[in-house]
Amino acid sequence: MATGEGKRRARAIITLLTDFGAEGGYAAAMKGVILGLTRGAMDVEVELVDLTHEVPRHDVRAGAFLLWSVVPYFPEGTIHLAVVDPGVGTERRGLIIAAGGHYLVGPDNGLLIPAAERLGLEAVYQLTEEGYWLPQVSTTFHGRDIFAPVAAHLARGVPPFKLGRRLEDRSWVDLSFGEGRRSGERLVGEVIYIDPFGNVITNIPGELVRDLLQGATLKLRVKARTGAEARGEGGRTWRLRFLETYARAELGELFLLVGSHGLVELAVNQGSAAEALGLQPGDRLEFELAR
Amino acid sequence: MATGEGKRRARAIITLLTDFGAEGGYAAAMKGVILGLTRGAMDVEVELVDLTHEVPRHDVRAGAFLLWSVVPYFPEGTIHLAVVDPGVGTERRGLIIAAGGHYLVGPDNGLLIPAAERLGLEAVYQLTEEGYWLPQVSTTFHGRDIFAPVAAHLARGVPPFKLGRRLEDRSWVDLSFGEGRRSGERLVGEVIYIDPFGNVITNIPGELVRDLLQGATLKLRVKARTGAEARGEGGRTWRLRFLETYARAELGELFLLVGSHGLVELAVNQGSAAEALGLQPGDRLEFELAR
Amino acid sequence: MATGEGKRRARAIITLLTDFGAEGGYAAAMKGVILGLTRGAMDVEVELVDLTHEVPRHDVRAGAFLLWSVVPYFPEGTIHLAVVDPGVGTERRGLIIAAGGHYLVGPDNGLLIPAAERLGLEAVYQLTEEGYWLPQVSTTFHGRDIFAPVAAHLARGVPPFKLGRRLEDRSWVDLSFGEGRRSGERLVGEVIYIDPFGNVITNIPGELVRDLLQGATLKLRVKARTGAEARGEGGRTWRLRFLETYARAELGELFLLVGSHGLVELAVNQGSAAEALGLQPGDRLEFELAR
Repeated sequence: MATGEGKRRARAIITLLTDFGAEGGYAAAMKGVILGLTRGAMDVEVELVDLTHEVPRHDVRAGAFLLWSVVPYFPEGTIHLAVVDPGVGTERRGLIIAAGGHYLVGPDNGLLIPAAERLGLEAVYQLTEEGYWLPQVSTTFHGRDIFAPVAAHLARGVPPFKLGRRLEDRSWVDLSFGEGRRSGERLVGEVIYIDPFGNVITNIPGELVRDLLQGATLKLRVKARTGAEARGEGGRTWRLRFLETYARAELGELFLLVGSHGLVELAVNQGSAAEALGLQPGDRLEFELAR
Repeated sequence: MATGEGKRRARAIITLLTDFGAEGGYAAAMKGVILGLTRGAMDVEVELVDLTHEVPRHDVRAGAFLLWSVVPYFPEGTIHLAVVDPGVGTERRGLIIAAGGHYLVGPDNGLLIPAAERLGLEAVYQLTEEGYWLPQVSTTFHGRDIFAPVAAHLARGVPPFKLGRRLEDRSWVDLSFGEGRRSGERLVGEVIYIDPFGNVITNIPGELVRDLLQGATLKLRVKARTGAEARGEGGRTWRLRFLETYARAELGELFLLVGSHGLVELAVNQGSAAEALGLQPGDRLEFELAR
Repeated sequence: MATGEGKRRARAIITLLTDFGAEGGYAAAMKGVILGLTRGAMDVEVELVDLTHEVPRHDVRAGAFLLWSVVPYFPEGTIHLAVVDPGVGTERRGLIIAAGGHYLVGPDNGLLIPAAERLGLEAVYQLTEEGYWLPQVSTTFHGRDIFAPVAAHLARGVPPFKLGRRLEDRSWVDLSFGEGRRSGERLVGEVIYIDPFGNVITNIPGELVRDLLQGATLKLRVKARTGAEARGEGGRTWRLRFLETYARAELGELFLLVGSHGLVELAVNQGSAAEALGLQPGDRLEFELAR
């Protein structure tokens, strides 16, 4: 190719996931920082993609689930910037994780781990090189002052080992949703996320129930409820059909399905299963095939 | 032009409208799919534009209104991906509609029709070619598994007849907001949408009232209320001025105007007309010029 | 460079800030207009960046704060399109402000002023050239019909003096958050914004308190409350520690810090200070060092 002008710039995708709320200016400040640091670049153009800024406040597990749920759909080379960071300004570390050809950038509190493991975790770096951060780092907003600049420099082609120090000791904070189990006709698992429709997503892999007949009936018992002692709640049992999709249920019927995450979900056709059952993340569930 | 490198890539705009909620990861998964499928493309770059992900859950009519209200402002060649899809996973079909140089992609439940007719409906295709979908199609999330890939392939230049089968029989599901009427000094119409400010948008075209004097007074009667029997409500009458814009009204005054959609609206200056009147989409209204 | 095809298009960033609500179609219509007017452009590509569409309805001061808080992070050349516009359709003017290499576009109601002054206000133009607006201008939606087209034309390189008439008389509507003061061990200021976490941001510059020891205790008294007479409220006193960041406080502790805006903030670790104190923008506060 003859001239630099004729060369096509690469396009770097940076996704953003935070609990900052779309009604504020914090996510926008991060976007400004990224665009400011990449605008002068001769060879890269950044494409910003909002995943969500509505992770429940301070809820690292919910953020980790959302990130886990979307990363495999993005192309190799994507940089995922994720900030749910109640420990900001303390000794908690900042990380870059290289995983399956993607980069993940954010706090060392578990937020990035399920997504990184799903993509194939390759290497973890602790952010140490202050020269790549904003000149003034606040104590309360590392999303803007550290993580966004680091994501921008990754997009410009700075390799992660220049931005931090590789951690060889698996010393980062882990986070796992566990995995539901089946023994015979009993399934045991945990609520890991309530989606915007009120669908209750469990950690029971769909493959465990693929042999159940569509239309089979199961009994659901809530084994243990997060904060249940405080609320003085006992167990209760529901009977549910196992169906293929929402519209196969009666309007308002509570039922069971394998949802789009490949996990067992509780749903109400055009209603909220979480509300109907009073469930929240962390609640433990038991299903049994009803004869 | 000497080399491929010097050639400018086309830019394809894909808009997204869903009821998935910005707080979840479903819209983000669709974006990932589109970027994944177009990233390798030599000759196209996709620009994603969120219309909204906050269509009221399962409310096909509200989604259809929002889509109708914005499509004419987008340039020719835009691809509109719209998913409000309570029937996902059943025999309801998926569609591409070619209309006025735009494409619309989504479920065959009426969602796309008013927008397509406003742009000028040219051809409707039923999505049939599974080779252009994700390899694994879930029963509950065709937005990610079918519609997003189809939009991405359209952006890459695959013609619609390769993605589906043309429907020549007008067998698709229709949806219309109807059209309010005027006879003499009486206007009759229906609420079709409540906007985020609480303005009540009717299906009465603004042209029907252009000859009314600004400042004229009208009597409003709610003729029939959606679910009114259940709520045991009778009719009530309000007197309203017909004004040019919000700030021409007293603070808190309920009044009538021709809004930015070109339709008759009920509004309260810096307040919510929907709340003041207890109105919702589907309610039928009658206006009469008060002497 | 040999050919036009080999020339790189400039990339113009247009940010959008409104009180339109992400659940409606109004912001989307503005985006459509901008993309429509720049799509044909040979030499510019527009990058749209949502700042927020969730400014509290009609709250010009909150919008002005949010805009002020993010503009310095965006690169030179950015065009900021801001619409919180309760006076739309009246004689209130539309403006372009050139400030620090950025442009700001929006209504003449103070919304743009703090941001412009922070960037370095250079020149103010009243929008007068209707040839650059949409052919049909509604009385209620100048964001779509006037401001979005003006931003698009700026992005295409039309200079502001072709779009309007320079105002030499400082006749535009001013807006200031004031500035808190310190005298000895007393600080006096005002609440200017409540962020999405419920942090209460005051107009007291952080530099005024930098010499306070971390961990020092202050007494807070609410001197005057917006609408206090109506609510019949008296003063009350709280004792607060001055801390470095959220996680340095006990869970649920109400405390004082210098936040990421460089301003004194009231915060509750993983809670809402605004709720705990019942504060809202405009409330006046007094702090005193407790011995």
